[in-house]
Amino acid sequence: MAQERSITNQLLFERLKVKDQLKNDEVVKLEGWVRSNRNNGSIGFIEFNDGSSFKNVQLVYTKETKNYDNIVHFRTGCTIQIEGKIVLTPENKQPFEIHLIDAFLLGDCSEDYPIQKKRHSFEFLRDIAHLRPRANTFNAIFRVRNKLAFAIHQYFQERDFMYVHTPEITSNDAEGAGQVFHVVSDFKDPTAFFGGSSASLTVSGQLHVEAFALAFRNVYTFGPTFRAENSNTTRHASEFWMIEPEIAFADLEDDMDLMEDFLKYIIKYVMKNCEDEMNFFNTMIEKGLLDKLNHVVNSNFVRMTYTEGIEILKNAVKAGHKFENNNIEWGMDLQSEHERYLTEVHVKGPMFLIDFPKHIKAFYMKQNSDGKTVAACDLLVPQVGEICGGSQREENYEVLKKKMVEMGNDKGLEWYLELRKFGGCIHSGFGLGFDRLLMYITGMQNIRDVEPYPRTPGSLKY
Amino acid sequence: MAQERSITNQLLFERLKVKDQLKNDEVVKLEGWVRSNRNNGSIGFIEFNDGSSFKNVQLVYTKETKNYDNIVHFRTGCTIQIEGKIVLTPENKQPFEIHLIDAFLLGDCSEDYPIQKKRHSFEFLRDIAHLRPRANTFNAIFRVRNKLAFAIHQYFQERDFMYVHTPEITSNDAEGAGQVFHVVSDFKDPTAFFGGSSASLTVSGQLHVEAFALAFRNVYTFGPTFRAENSNTTRHASEFWMIEPEIAFADLEDDMDLMEDFLKYIIKYVMKNCEDEMNFFNTMIEKGLLDKLNHVVNSNFVRMTYTEGIEILKNAVKAGHKFENNNIEWGMDLQSEHERYLTEVHVKGPMFLIDFPKHIKAFYMKQNSDGKTVAACDLLVPQVGEICGGSQREENYEVLKKKMVEMGNDKGLEWYLELRKFGGCIHSGFGLGFDRLLMYITGMQNIRDVEPYPRTPGSLKY
Repeated sequence: MAQERSITNQLLFERLKVKDQLKNDEVVKLEGWVRSNRNNGSIGFIEFNDGSSFKNVQLVYTKETKNYDNIVHFRTGCTIQIEGKIVLTPENKQPFEIHLIDAFLLGDCSEDYPIQKKRHSFEFLRDIAHLRPRANTFNAIFRVRNKLAFAIHQYFQERDFMYVHTPEITSNDAEGAGQVFHVVSDFKDPTAFFGGSSASLTVSGQLHVEAFALAFRNVYTFGPTFRAENSNTTRHASEFWMIEPEIAFADLEDDMDLMEDFLKYIIKYVMKNCEDEMNFFNTMIEKGLLDKLNHVVNSNFVRMTYTEGIEILKNAVKAGHKFENNNIEWGMDLQSEHERYLTEVHVKGPMFLIDFPKHIKAFYMKQNSDGKTVAACDLLVPQVGEICGGSQREENYEVLKKKMVEMGNDKGLEWYLELRKFGGCIHSGFGLGFDRLLMYITGMQNIRDVEPYPRTPGSLKY
Repeated sequence: MAQERSITNQLLFERLKVKDQLKNDEVVKLEGWVRSNRNNGSIGFIEFNDGSSFKNVQLVYTKETKNYDNIVHFRTGCTIQIEGKIVLTPENKQPFEIHLIDAFLLGDCSEDYPIQKKRHSFEFLRDIAHLRPRANTFNAIFRVRNKLAFAIHQYFQERDFMYVHTPEITSNDAEGAGQVFHVVSDFKDPTAFFGGSSASLTVSGQLHVEAFALAFRNVYTFGPTFRAENSNTTRHASEFWMIEPEIAFADLEDDMDLMEDFLKYIIKYVMKNCEDEMNFFNTMIEKGLLDKLNHVVNSNFVRMTYTEGIEILKNAVKAGHKFENNNIEWGMDLQSEHERYLTEVHVKGPMFLIDFPKHIKAFYMKQNSDGKTVAACDLLVPQVGEICGGSQREENYEVLKKKMVEMGNDKGLEWYLELRKFGGCIHSGFGLGFDRLLMYITGMQNIRDVEPYPRTPGSLKY
C-alpha cells in the first residue's frame, strides 16, 4: 500500500478551485474516517474525512454500489478505503460529492467510541485528548495551530532572523519568580546529575537568546516554557510555547514596530490560509471574531505611557466608572480590568502602554533617564488586555549590575552581565505566549482546548 | 535609532550578486562588531561582522578618516557604527570593501575578552557558550542550525503535514527505558502537583503524535527531548531536538520513501542556502564533507533485511575481517562497527536495514508474518552507522495488547491501545535526532559544539 496511489480530500478541494481541474466521472480512491453514515434503504450518505482537510466530503451509495450490505453498517469513527466517481454539484452547499463504486473497512470502530454525531462538551473531550482531534472544533484548532506556528517561522526567516534553540533545562530562571519545576535524575541526590547544579525547567529563553542577538543581530527563540504555578484558571498552563525575538541595535520604538508588524502578519497569514477554519470559529465559537481580527490588522497601534494611562484611569473613576480595584495610583501594577478599559473604552483598539515604574518590572529592563521608569511595553488588545510584553534591555554594565544585586538576580548570571562588557549595544525584544495567542485568534476560551495535550495542575494523563 | 535606517552585511552581499546593484561610492551606514583591527600607521583594516552574514566585510581607514585617532584603538570584540563608501574590488578575494568616512564606538570591549584573533580550542569555547557564537566556527554552525530547522518545517509544510507540539512533561515514556528526568514542583511531595501522577521529561513524542496521525493523516513533531543517561560521550546530550513524522495509511516502504526523500531535501536545502558556511566546514572541519553529502543526495538508498546483513557480516568474519565483536549471530543488536561495515564496505552508500528480530526492538513495532521479526528500519550512512530509525506500527489491537503486557508497557498507555480500537489503520513513522544530523552535515565531532547551550552530565552553567 503506497500513499502515492491515493488522492486526498485536500487535493480534491484544491483542484476544485482551478477551472476544469475536477471533472465529473473521474474515478478516485481515498482512505479516511467515517464521521457519520445514514441511509434510507435505497440511498445512503457518508460524511467522510481523511484528515487532510477541515471540510468533509460526502460519499453517496445505493443498492447498486458494490459491497452495499457492508457499507450500510460502517460505523462512526471507522476507517475505510473507497473508490468512487466525482459528481460536481455546484448548486449545493458542498460543491462536489463522490458516488461510491466500492468501499471496504480498513479498521473497525468499537461501538463505545466516545465521539458520536452529536455535540460533546469541551470538558468531556478534554478527557479524551487522543481522540478529540477528530471532533470538528479540535480539528479546526490544531489546523490553525499548525499554520500559526509556521507563520511565525516564515515571518522571521523572511527577515533573516536566526532561530535559536534555547535550553529547556537551565540553572537560572529569567524572572527570578521561583515558580519553577525542578529537574532531577535521582531523588536521593537531586543535584548530582549536573555536577552539583540544581536544574529547573526554563520560564523564558530571553536571557539565553540575548547572547545570540549580540552575535547575530536579529534572532528568535520559539519553544516550550514552563510554570509551576498552582493556578487553575482558563488561561494558565504548566507547559506552553513562547516566541521570543531579540533584536540588536534596536530601541523600544523598533521593538514596538516589530511587535505590531509581526502580529499583523501572523493574523493575516492565518486568516488567509485557514479560511474554512476561521469561518467555523466565527460562526460557532465567537461571533464577530473575524471583525475583531480585521480591526487589529487594520489599526495603527496607539502608543501611550503608563503615566498617561494612570491619568486616564483616575479620570474614569472620577467620572463614575467602577473597577473592582478603584484605587488607581501611580506605581500600581494594572489589572486586566484597567488594561481593558484603556484598550476597549478609551483607545478602542490595540495599544502599547510604555515606560512602566521600574519596581514592577524585571531587572533587565532599560532604565529611562527619569530614573523612575523603564523602557518596557505591554501590548493591550480589546477583550483580553495584555497579549504580549517587551522591553529595551539595560545595556549599561554598571546600572545592570547594581539592579541585579538590588533585586537579587546576580547569582549565576555573571555571563549575562558580561554581555555588557564585551561589545554590548542597545537591544530589545519581546515575549509572546503562543497558546494564548491561539486562543485570541480562534476565540477559544480555555487554554486546555488549544494545546494538543494540555498540562495543568492536578492531572497528568498521557 | 531605528534598525531600518542602517543596511546589513547580508544585504550588501545579496545586492552584489545582482548586476549593478552595488556600486562604487555608494555611502552606507552599518552597525556591528570588530573581529580584528590592524594598521601600519598610514592605512588600517577592520574585519567587521554585523551578525547578518557569515562572511566579514573589510573596512579600510586612513589618517584622512574622521575620528582616526579613536578608530585605531577599536579593540577586537567592540561594537561600532560606521559610515563609509563602497569600493568594488572584483580582482580581490573579497569582492568589495568599505572605505570609512567616520566610525564611532557603540560599546567597548574589555581587554580580557576571551575571543581573540587566534585559534581557540573547542573545549575552551564550550566554557563561554554566551560568547562563542562570535567565533567563526560557531557562527557557521548556528547559521546552519537555523537553516536546517527551517528546511524541516518547509519540507513538511509543503507536503501538508501538520506540525504537532507533543508535550515535554509526560506521565509515560515511549521506550520504557527508565533513563528519564523527573519533574517536580515540591520535593516533599513529588507527585502532588499533577494530582498523584509522577511526571517526567519526554524521551519521544511518537506515541502522542500517533493519535494525531489517526486524525490528520500526515503529521510531525519537532521539539526538545531528554535522556538522563550518564553517558559522557561525544554523541550524547541530556537535551536534544528530535523530528518525528508519522504517516497514516502507510507501510514500512512508504516510511523509507519518506525518510530518503526528506533527508535528501534537507541536505540539499542546506548546501544551497548555506554555501559559505558549508565551504568553510569542507575546508576547516571535514575534508571531503561536500563529497560525502553529495554522495548521499545522489544515491538510491539500498534496502536490505537484517537477516541478509547478518549473513554478510558472518561472511566478512570468515574472510578475515576483524570486528571488536566478531561473534556474529542472528538476534544480536548490531554495533556501530557492524553497521559501518555494511554501509561503508559492503554497500558503499546509504542503506536501510529492515525487519529486525522483535526482541531487540520496541513494543509498538508491527510484527511481520514470520512471527520473528518486526517491520522496523534503521537508516545507515557511511562514517556514522545508524542516523535514524523508523517502523511500521502495530495496528492490531490484540497483538499490540499482548506485546505491551509481555514487555511491561501496558500501564498508563490504555489510550494508546485504544487508537487500535477506534478506527485504526496501518501507519508508520520515524525519529531523527536533529543535533546528530547537524553534526553529520557540518562534520562537527562533538554534540556539545552544535547546540547553543549543550546540556550534558556533570555541569549546568547557563
